[in-house]
Amino acid sequence: MVKQDRYPGFFLTVEGGEGAGKTTNIEFIESWLQQQGLDYIRTREPGGTPLAERIRDLLLTPGDEKVADMTELLLMFAARAQHINAVIRPALEAGKVVLCDRFTDASFAYQGAGRGLDHNALCTLETLVQQELRPDMTLLLDLSVDIGMARASKRGELDRIEQEEKDFFVRVRQGYLNRAAGEPERFVIVDASQALEWVQEAIKDALQERIAHD
Amino acid sequence: MVKQDRYPGFFLTVEGGEGAGKTTNIEFIESWLQQQGLDYIRTREPGGTPLAERIRDLLLTPGDEKVADMTELLLMFAARAQHINAVIRPALEAGKVVLCDRFTDASFAYQGAGRGLDHNALCTLETLVQQELRPDMTLLLDLSVDIGMARASKRGELDRIEQEEKDFFVRVRQGYLNRAAGEPERFVIVDASQALEWVQEAIKDALQERIAHD
Repeated sequence: MVKQDRYPGFFLTVEGGEGAGKTTNIEFIESWLQQQGLDYIRTREPGGTPLAERIRDLLLTPGDEKVADMTELLLMFAARAQHINAVIRPALEAGKVVLCDRFTDASFAYQGAGRGLDHNALCTLETLVQQELRPDMTLLLDLSVDIGMARASKRGELDRIEQEEKDFFVRVRQGYLNRAAGEPERFVIVDASQALEWVQEAIKDALQERIAHD
Repeated sequence: MVKQDRYPGFFLTVEGGEGAGKTTNIEFIESWLQQQGLDYIRTREPGGTPLAERIRDLLLTPGDEKVADMTELLLMFAARAQHINAVIRPALEAGKVVLCDRFTDASFAYQGAGRGLDHNALCTLETLVQQELRPDMTLLLDLSVDIGMARASKRGELDRIEQEEKDFFVRVRQGYLNRAAGEPERFVIVDASQALEWVQEAIKDALQERIAHD
Protein backbone atom coordinates (compact mmCIF):
# COMPACT_ATOMS: atom_id res chain seq x y z
CA MET A 1 0.00 0.00 0.00
CA VAL A 2 1.15 3.54 -0.79
CA LYS A 3 1.09 5.10 2.66
CA GLN A 4 3.10 6.62 5.41
CA ASP A 5 4.39 4.22 8.02
CA ARG A 6 2.57 5.56 11.05
CA TYR A 7 0.59 2.33 11.53
CA PRO A 8 0.25 -0.90 9.59
CA GLY A 9 -3.32 -0.33 8.33
CA PHE A 10 -4.67 1.97 5.59
CA PHE A 11 -7.03 4.85 6.37
CA LEU A 12 -9.38 5.57 3.45
CA THR A 13 -11.97 8.34 3.74
CA VAL A 14 -14.78 9.22 1.34
CA GLU A 15 -16.02 12.81 1.12
CA GLY A 16 -18.56 14.69 -0.92
CA GLY A 17 -21.55 16.98 -0.75
CA GLU A 18 -25.22 16.05 -0.78
CA GLY A 19 -26.25 13.71 -3.58
CA ALA A 20 -22.68 12.93 -4.68
CA GLY A 21 -23.28 9.18 -4.35
CA LYS A 22 -21.20 8.49 -1.25
CA THR A 23 -23.27 5.54 -0.06
CA THR A 24 -23.42 3.79 -3.44
CA ASN A 25 -19.72 4.21 -4.01
CA ILE A 26 -18.76 3.18 -0.48
CA GLU A 27 -20.62 -0.06 -1.14
CA PHE A 28 -18.65 -0.41 -4.36
CA ILE A 29 -15.36 0.13 -2.48
CA GLU A 30 -16.46 -2.39 0.11
CA SER A 31 -16.97 -5.12 -2.50
CA TRP A 32 -13.61 -4.26 -4.08
CA LEU A 33 -11.92 -4.66 -0.67
CA GLN A 34 -13.68 -8.01 -0.24
CA GLN A 35 -12.55 -9.17 -3.69
CA GLN A 36 -8.97 -8.28 -2.79
CA GLY A 37 -9.30 -10.31 0.40
CA LEU A 38 -8.33 -7.29 2.51
CA ASP A 39 -9.28 -7.12 6.16
CA TYR A 40 -11.33 -3.94 6.57
CA ILE A 41 -13.94 -2.15 8.63
CA ARG A 42 -16.56 0.23 7.31
CA THR A 43 -17.55 3.14 9.55
CA ARG A 44 -18.86 6.71 9.36
CA GLU A 45 -18.69 10.19 10.86
CA PRO A 46 -20.16 11.69 12.84
CA GLY A 47 -20.71 8.35 14.57
CA GLY A 48 -19.00 4.98 14.54
CA THR A 49 -19.48 4.12 18.23
CA PRO A 50 -22.69 4.08 20.32
CA LEU A 51 -21.70 7.33 22.12
CA ALA A 52 -20.58 9.01 18.88
CA GLU A 53 -23.87 7.98 17.25
CA ARG A 54 -25.72 9.67 20.12
CA ILE A 55 -23.67 12.81 19.44
CA ARG A 56 -24.57 12.42 15.73
CA ASP A 57 -28.20 12.43 16.72
CA LEU A 58 -27.74 15.71 18.66
CA LEU A 59 -26.03 17.19 15.59
CA LEU A 60 -28.41 16.12 12.84
CA THR A 61 -31.89 16.01 14.37
CA PRO A 62 -33.60 19.34 13.82
CA GLY A 63 -34.68 20.84 17.17
CA ASP A 64 -36.21 24.05 18.45
CA GLU A 65 -32.90 25.41 19.72
CA LYS A 66 -30.45 27.02 17.29
CA VAL A 67 -27.15 25.13 17.52
CA ALA A 68 -24.25 27.61 17.88
CA ASP A 69 -21.57 27.14 15.20
CA MET A 70 -18.88 26.48 17.81
CA THR A 71 -21.12 23.92 19.54
CA GLU A 72 -21.58 22.09 16.23
CA LEU A 73 -17.83 22.10 15.61
CA LEU A 74 -16.95 20.83 19.09
CA LEU A 75 -19.62 18.11 18.97
CA MET A 76 -18.17 16.93 15.64
CA PHE A 77 -14.70 16.72 17.16
CA ALA A 78 -15.99 15.11 20.38
CA ALA A 79 -17.59 12.35 18.31
CA ARG A 80 -14.37 12.11 16.28
CA ALA A 81 -12.20 11.77 19.40
CA GLN A 82 -14.35 8.86 20.57
CA HIS A 83 -14.39 7.25 17.12
CA ILE A 84 -10.61 7.48 16.71
CA ASN A 85 -9.93 6.17 20.18
CA ALA A 86 -12.40 3.27 20.17
CA VAL A 87 -12.51 2.26 16.50
CA ILE A 88 -10.15 3.86 13.96
CA ARG A 89 -6.80 3.71 15.77
CA PRO A 90 -7.23 0.12 17.03
CA ALA A 91 -8.19 -1.07 13.52
CA LEU A 92 -5.24 0.72 11.88
CA GLU A 93 -2.88 -0.68 14.50
CA ALA A 94 -4.26 -4.15 13.75
CA GLY A 95 -3.36 -3.66 10.08
CA LYS A 96 -6.90 -3.23 8.74
CA VAL A 97 -8.20 -0.95 6.02
CA VAL A 98 -10.52 1.61 7.63
CA LEU A 99 -13.16 2.75 5.14
CA CYS A 100 -14.77 5.85 6.63
CA ASP A 101 -17.74 7.84 5.32
CA ARG A 102 -16.54 11.41 6.02
CA PHE A 103 -13.79 12.60 8.35
CA THR A 104 -12.08 15.89 9.24
CA ASP A 105 -12.14 17.25 5.69
CA ALA A 106 -15.92 17.43 6.18
CA SER A 107 -15.41 19.67 9.22
CA PHE A 108 -13.19 21.98 7.14
CA ALA A 109 -15.82 22.01 4.37
CA TYR A 110 -19.07 22.25 6.41
CA GLN A 111 -18.09 24.04 9.63
CA GLY A 112 -15.11 25.92 8.18
CA ALA A 113 -16.06 26.98 4.63
CA GLY A 114 -19.83 26.50 5.10
CA ARG A 115 -20.36 28.18 8.48
CA GLY A 116 -17.35 30.47 8.24
CA LEU A 117 -15.62 29.20 11.39
CA ASP A 118 -11.99 30.25 11.76
CA HIS A 119 -9.57 28.03 9.82
CA ASN A 120 -7.00 28.16 12.63
CA ALA A 121 -9.57 26.88 15.14
CA LEU A 122 -10.12 23.87 12.88
CA CYS A 123 -6.40 23.22 12.52
CA THR A 124 -6.02 23.46 16.31
CA LEU A 125 -8.79 20.92 16.92
CA GLU A 126 -7.47 18.61 14.20
CA THR A 127 -4.09 18.46 15.94
CA LEU A 128 -5.59 18.22 19.42
CA VAL A 129 -7.85 15.29 18.56
CA GLN A 130 -5.86 13.42 15.90
CA GLN A 131 -2.25 14.10 16.80
CA GLU A 132 -0.37 12.52 13.86
CA LEU A 133 -3.38 10.60 12.48
CA ARG A 134 -4.39 11.59 8.92
CA PRO A 135 -6.16 9.63 6.15
CA ASP A 136 -3.83 7.82 3.76
CA MET A 137 -6.21 8.44 0.88
CA THR A 138 -9.32 10.58 0.53
CA LEU A 139 -11.77 10.06 -2.28
CA LEU A 140 -13.64 13.30 -3.03
CA LEU A 141 -16.82 12.79 -5.03
CA ASP A 142 -17.19 16.22 -6.56
CA LEU A 143 -20.45 17.46 -8.00
CA SER A 144 -22.10 20.76 -8.86
CA VAL A 145 -24.43 21.92 -6.11
CA ASP A 146 -27.44 22.10 -8.44
CA ILE A 147 -27.14 18.47 -9.48
CA GLY A 148 -26.35 17.36 -5.92
CA MET A 149 -29.34 19.13 -4.37
CA ALA A 150 -31.66 17.81 -7.06
CA ARG A 151 -30.48 14.26 -6.36
CA ALA A 152 -30.58 14.65 -2.56
CA SER A 153 -34.10 16.11 -2.55
CA LYS A 154 -35.39 12.86 -4.09
CA ARG A 155 -34.26 10.95 -1.01
CA GLY A 156 -37.02 12.38 1.20
CA GLU A 157 -36.50 13.97 4.59
CA LEU A 158 -33.43 16.15 5.04
CA ASP A 159 -31.42 16.34 8.28
CA ARG A 160 -30.63 19.61 10.09
CA ILE A 161 -27.50 20.35 8.06
CA GLU A 162 -29.02 19.24 4.75
CA GLN A 163 -31.73 21.89 5.27
CA GLU A 164 -29.25 24.74 4.65
CA GLU A 165 -29.54 27.13 1.68
CA LYS A 166 -27.77 26.63 -1.67
CA ASP A 167 -25.07 29.25 -0.91
CA PHE A 168 -23.99 27.15 2.06
CA PHE A 169 -23.40 24.10 -0.16
CA VAL A 170 -21.56 26.18 -2.74
CA ARG A 171 -19.12 27.18 0.03
CA VAL A 172 -18.91 23.56 1.22
CA ARG A 173 -17.95 22.35 -2.26
CA GLN A 174 -15.33 25.08 -2.56
CA GLY A 175 -14.04 24.15 0.91
CA TYR A 176 -13.55 20.55 -0.20
CA LEU A 177 -11.81 21.60 -3.43
CA ASN A 178 -9.48 23.95 -1.52
CA ARG A 179 -8.59 21.22 0.89
CA ALA A 180 -7.90 18.83 -2.01
CA ALA A 181 -5.76 21.45 -3.76
CA GLY A 182 -3.61 21.74 -0.64
CA GLU A 183 -2.96 17.99 -0.41
CA PRO A 184 -2.99 16.59 -3.96
CA GLU A 185 -1.01 13.49 -2.97
CA ARG A 186 -3.73 12.43 -0.50
CA PHE A 187 -6.85 13.38 -2.47
CA VAL A 188 -8.38 11.61 -5.45
CA ILE A 189 -11.08 13.84 -6.97
CA VAL A 190 -13.70 12.01 -9.03
CA ASP A 191 -16.29 13.85 -11.12
CA ALA A 192 -19.50 12.49 -9.62
CA SER A 193 -21.69 14.02 -12.34
CA GLN A 194 -20.51 11.29 -14.72
CA ALA A 195 -22.31 7.99 -15.27
CA LEU A 196 -21.97 5.60 -12.34
CA GLU A 197 -19.95 3.11 -14.41
CA TRP A 198 -17.39 5.75 -15.29
CA VAL A 199 -17.21 6.93 -11.64
CA GLN A 200 -16.64 3.41 -10.38
CA GLU A 201 -13.98 2.72 -13.00
CA ALA A 202 -12.14 5.83 -11.78
CA ILE A 203 -12.50 4.72 -8.16
CA LYS A 204 -11.23 1.22 -8.97
CA ASP A 205 -8.17 2.64 -10.75
CA ALA A 206 -7.34 4.79 -7.71
CA LEU A 207 -7.79 1.90 -5.28
CA GLN A 208 -5.61 -0.37 -7.37
CA GLU A 209 -2.87 2.21 -7.58
CA ARG A 210 -2.91 3.10 -3.89
CA ILE A 211 -4.01 0.01 -2.02
CA ALA A 212 -3.62 -3.11 -4.17
CA HIS A 213 0.02 -2.53 -5.14
CA ASP A 214 1.52 -3.04 -1.72
CA MET B 1 -19.86 46.10 41.15
CA VAL B 2 -16.15 45.38 41.21
CA LYS B 3 -15.64 44.05 37.70
CA GLN B 4 -14.02 44.60 34.38
CA ASP B 5 -16.04 46.58 31.88
CA ARG B 6 -16.49 43.92 29.22
CA TYR B 7 -20.26 43.84 29.63
CA PRO B 8 -22.73 45.50 32.01
CA GLY B 9 -23.66 42.33 33.97
CA PHE B 10 -21.73 40.38 36.61
CA PHE B 11 -20.60 36.80 36.05
CA LEU B 12 -20.44 34.84 39.32
CA THR B 13 -19.41 31.17 39.28
CA VAL B 14 -19.46 28.67 42.14
CA GLU B 15 -16.96 25.81 42.16
CA GLY B 16 -16.11 22.98 44.49
CA GLY B 17 -15.65 19.23 44.72
CA GLU B 18 -18.19 16.60 45.72
CA GLY B 19 -20.03 17.34 48.98
CA ALA B 20 -18.72 20.90 49.29
CA GLY B 21 -22.25 22.29 49.60
CA LYS B 22 -22.56 23.97 46.23
CA THR B 23 -26.32 23.59 45.94
CA THR B 24 -27.11 24.83 49.48
CA ASN B 25 -24.84 27.82 49.09
CA ILE B 26 -26.05 28.68 45.60
CA GLU B 27 -29.55 28.87 47.10
CA PHE B 28 -28.16 31.16 49.81
CA ILE B 29 -26.55 33.39 47.15
CA GLU B 30 -29.80 33.43 45.23
CA SER B 31 -31.74 34.75 48.23
CA TRP B 32 -29.04 37.36 48.85
CA LEU B 33 -29.36 38.55 45.21
CA GLN B 34 -33.14 38.73 45.65
CA GLN B 35 -32.77 40.74 48.88
CA GLN B 36 -30.53 43.20 47.05
CA GLY B 37 -33.14 43.53 44.32
CA LEU B 38 -30.60 42.51 41.67
CA ASP B 39 -31.77 41.13 38.34
CA TYR B 40 -30.16 37.69 38.01
CA ILE B 41 -30.35 34.27 36.39
CA ARG B 42 -29.29 30.99 37.96
CA THR B 43 -27.82 28.37 35.68
CA ARG B 44 -25.39 25.44 35.69
CA GLU B 45 -22.71 23.56 33.75
CA PRO B 46 -22.62 21.28 32.01
CA GLY B 47 -26.10 22.31 30.92
CA GLY B 48 -28.12 25.51 30.98
CA THR B 49 -29.93 25.04 27.64
CA PRO B 50 -32.00 22.07 26.39
CA LEU B 51 -29.21 20.99 24.00
CA ALA B 52 -26.49 21.49 26.62
CA GLU B 53 -28.55 19.46 29.11
CA ARG B 54 -28.68 16.63 26.55
CA ILE B 55 -24.88 16.85 26.31
CA ARG B 56 -24.77 16.79 30.14
CA ASP B 57 -26.75 13.58 30.04
CA LEU B 58 -24.21 12.01 27.63
CA LEU B 59 -21.42 13.10 29.99
CA LEU B 60 -22.83 12.02 33.33
CA THR B 61 -24.94 8.94 32.67
CA PRO B 62 -22.82 5.83 33.17
CA GLY B 63 -22.85 3.69 30.01
CA ASP B 64 -21.17 0.56 28.70
CA GLU B 65 -18.73 2.48 26.52
CA LYS B 66 -15.63 4.04 28.08
CA VAL B 67 -15.68 7.78 27.32
CA ALA B 68 -12.28 8.91 25.97
CA ASP B 69 -10.78 11.78 27.99
CA MET B 70 -10.65 14.05 24.93
CA THR B 71 -14.30 13.24 24.13
CA GLU B 72 -15.30 14.24 27.67
CA LEU B 73 -13.33 17.49 27.40
CA LEU B 74 -14.80 18.42 24.01
CA LEU B 75 -18.35 17.59 25.10
CA MET B 76 -17.88 19.86 28.13
CA PHE B 77 -16.75 22.71 25.89
CA ALA B 78 -19.47 22.00 23.29
CA ALA B 79 -22.09 22.36 26.04
CA ARG B 80 -20.29 25.49 27.26
CA ALA B 81 -20.27 27.08 23.80
CA GLN B 82 -24.03 26.60 23.56
CA HIS B 83 -24.61 27.87 27.10
CA ILE B 84 -22.49 31.00 26.58
CA ASN B 85 -24.09 31.79 23.25
CA ALA B 86 -27.71 31.19 24.22
CA VAL B 87 -27.77 32.14 27.93
CA ILE B 88 -24.69 33.64 29.59
CA ARG B 89 -23.64 36.30 27.10
CA PRO B 90 -27.18 37.63 26.44
CA ALA B 91 -27.82 37.89 30.22
CA LEU B 92 -24.53 39.71 30.86
CA GLU B 93 -25.17 42.06 27.97
CA ALA B 94 -28.60 42.79 29.46
CA GLY B 95 -26.89 43.79 32.72
CA LYS B 96 -27.92 40.77 34.79
CA VAL B 97 -26.00 38.86 37.42
CA VAL B 98 -25.31 35.35 36.07
CA LEU B 99 -25.03 32.86 38.95
CA CYS B 100 -23.52 29.71 37.47
CA ASP B 101 -22.97 26.34 39.18
CA ARG B 102 -19.54 25.42 37.74
CA PHE B 103 -17.74 26.82 34.70
CA THR B 104 -14.35 26.44 33.00
CA ASP B 105 -12.41 26.16 36.28
CA ALA B 106 -14.16 22.81 36.65
CA SER B 107 -12.74 21.67 33.30
CA PHE B 108 -9.26 22.63 34.48
CA ALA B 109 -9.84 20.76 37.76
CA TYR B 110 -11.67 17.62 36.53
CA GLN B 111 -10.43 17.09 32.97
CA GLY B 112 -7.07 18.83 33.43
CA ALA B 113 -5.81 17.96 36.92
CA GLY B 114 -8.13 14.97 37.42
CA ARG B 115 -7.77 13.19 34.06
CA GLY B 116 -4.32 14.58 33.28
CA LEU B 117 -5.29 16.27 30.01
CA ASP B 118 -2.75 18.74 28.67
CA HIS B 119 -3.02 22.20 30.25
CA ASN B 120 -2.34 23.92 26.92
CA ALA B 121 -5.22 22.05 25.30
CA LEU B 122 -7.50 23.45 27.99
CA CYS B 123 -6.19 26.99 27.55
CA THR B 124 -6.69 26.68 23.77
CA LEU B 125 -10.30 25.56 24.17
CA GLU B 126 -10.98 28.24 26.79
CA THR B 127 -9.90 30.94 24.34
CA LEU B 128 -11.64 29.32 21.37
CA VAL B 129 -15.00 29.05 23.12
CA GLN B 130 -15.01 32.04 25.46
CA GLN B 131 -12.90 34.64 23.65
CA GLU B 132 -12.67 37.44 26.25
CA LEU B 133 -15.40 36.07 28.55
CA ARG B 134 -14.22 35.19 32.08
CA PRO B 135 -16.09 35.08 35.42
CA ASP B 136 -15.93 38.32 37.42
CA MET B 137 -15.89 36.38 40.66
CA THR B 138 -15.49 32.70 41.46
CA LEU B 139 -16.46 31.26 44.81
CA LEU B 140 -14.44 28.12 45.53
CA LEU B 141 -15.94 25.96 48.28
CA ASP B 142 -12.85 24.09 49.39
CA LEU B 143 -13.05 20.88 51.38
CA SER B 144 -10.84 17.90 52.15
CA VAL B 145 -11.64 14.96 49.91
CA ASP B 146 -12.42 12.64 52.84
CA ILE B 147 -15.09 14.92 54.24
CA GLY B 148 -16.45 15.68 50.78
CA MET B 149 -16.76 12.04 49.74
CA ALA B 150 -18.38 11.11 53.06
CA ARG B 151 -20.98 13.85 52.56
CA ALA B 152 -21.56 13.05 48.87
CA SER B 153 -22.03 9.33 49.50
CA LYS B 154 -25.04 10.12 51.70
CA ARG B 155 -26.84 11.66 48.72
CA GLY B 156 -27.46 8.32 47.04
CA GLU B 157 -26.63 7.43 43.45
CA LEU B 158 -23.40 8.83 42.01
CA ASP B 159 -23.04 9.99 38.39
CA ARG B 160 -20.31 8.72 36.04
CA ILE B 161 -17.69 11.24 37.15
CA GLU B 162 -18.61 10.98 40.85
CA GLN B 163 -17.79 7.27 40.64
CA GLU B 164 -14.04 7.97 40.30
CA GLU B 165 -11.48 6.89 42.92
CA LYS B 166 -10.29 9.08 45.80
CA ASP B 167 -6.94 9.92 44.08
CA PHE B 168 -8.89 11.50 41.24
CA PHE B 169 -10.67 13.87 43.64
CA VAL B 170 -7.42 14.71 45.43
CA ARG B 171 -6.04 15.88 42.06
CA VAL B 172 -9.29 17.77 41.33
CA ARG B 173 -9.04 19.67 44.63
CA GLN B 174 -5.41 20.54 43.93
CA GLY B 175 -6.38 21.63 40.42
CA TYR B 176 -8.94 24.06 41.85
CA LEU B 177 -6.46 25.43 44.40
CA ASN B 178 -3.79 25.92 41.71
CA ARG B 179 -6.25 27.76 39.52
CA ALA B 180 -7.25 29.97 42.49
CA ALA B 181 -3.60 30.66 43.32
CA GLY B 182 -3.05 31.89 39.77
CA GLU B 183 -5.95 34.37 39.89
CA PRO B 184 -6.32 35.54 43.50
CA GLU B 185 -8.24 38.68 42.49
CA ARG B 186 -11.01 36.61 40.89
CA PHE B 187 -11.25 33.75 43.39
CA VAL B 188 -12.79 33.76 46.86
CA ILE B 189 -11.84 30.55 48.66
CA VAL B 190 -14.17 29.55 51.50
CA ASP B 191 -13.39 26.69 53.88
CA ALA B 192 -16.43 24.48 53.36
CA SER B 193 -15.56 22.21 56.29
CA GLN B 194 -16.74 24.94 58.67
CA ALA B 195 -20.27 25.20 60.04
CA LEU B 196 -22.80 26.34 57.44
CA GLU B 197 -23.46 29.61 59.32
CA TRP B 198 -19.79 30.52 59.19
CA VAL B 199 -19.55 29.56 55.50
CA GLN B 200 -22.55 31.70 54.60
CA GLU B 201 -21.25 34.67 56.60
CA ALA B 202 -18.01 34.44 54.57
CA ILE B 203 -19.97 34.22 51.32
CA LYS B 204 -22.13 37.22 52.27
CA ASP B 205 -19.05 39.30 53.06
CA ALA B 206 -17.53 38.48 49.67
CA LEU B 207 -20.76 39.26 47.81
CA GLN B 208 -21.16 42.57 49.61
CA GLU B 209 -17.62 43.59 48.84
CA ARG B 210 -17.71 42.57 45.18
CA ILE B 211 -21.30 42.99 44.06
CA ALA B 212 -23.27 45.23 46.43
CA HIS B 213 -20.80 48.14 46.44
CA ASP B 214 -21.35 49.19 42.89
